Amino acid sequence: MSDTQTYQFNVKMTCGGCSGAVTKALTKLKEGGGISDFDVSLEKQEVIVHGTAPYETVLEKIKKTGKQVRDSPCC
Amino acid sequence: MSDTQTYQFNVKMTCGGCSGAVTKALTKLKEGGGISDFDVSLEKQEVIVHGTAPYETVLEKIKKTGKQVRDSPCC
Repeated sequence: MSDTQTYQFNVKMTCGGCSGAVTKALTKLKEGGGISDFDVSLEKQEVIVHGTAPYETVLEKIKKTGKQVRDSPCC
Repeated sequence: MSDTQTYQFNVKMTCGGCSGAVTKALTKLKEGGGISDFDVSLEKQEVIVHGTAPYETVLEKIKKTGKQVRDSPCC
């Protein structure tokens, strides 16, 4: 098994509908087992993800919501 | 070639960020050639799509944005 990673994304979210959309997408990824936990903060415009899925997988998932992801070096 | 269809979706969008996300997803689908045109109305909570792509393809694309799609019989 891969080690659990923590990824931080700066995501442009302008209302609860936006953050809800990101939450929904990540919940699906969590159900699929790729990530163990995550936190979506509308206030901070920030998404924190913990899991074994590759960075690109998580990034693509967030991007598929149509939200703009500002660049986010891994932490 | 398949005939061009018109699909109407009732999509829950609560701000310009929400409708922008749907617009972005559908723009990608349009670039891919599956649909010829579309209109996203935040005011009407409505998305109209014209194209040859199957209904399910368009529906999945919209759902991937994490937006709630209320049921939408084809027109």
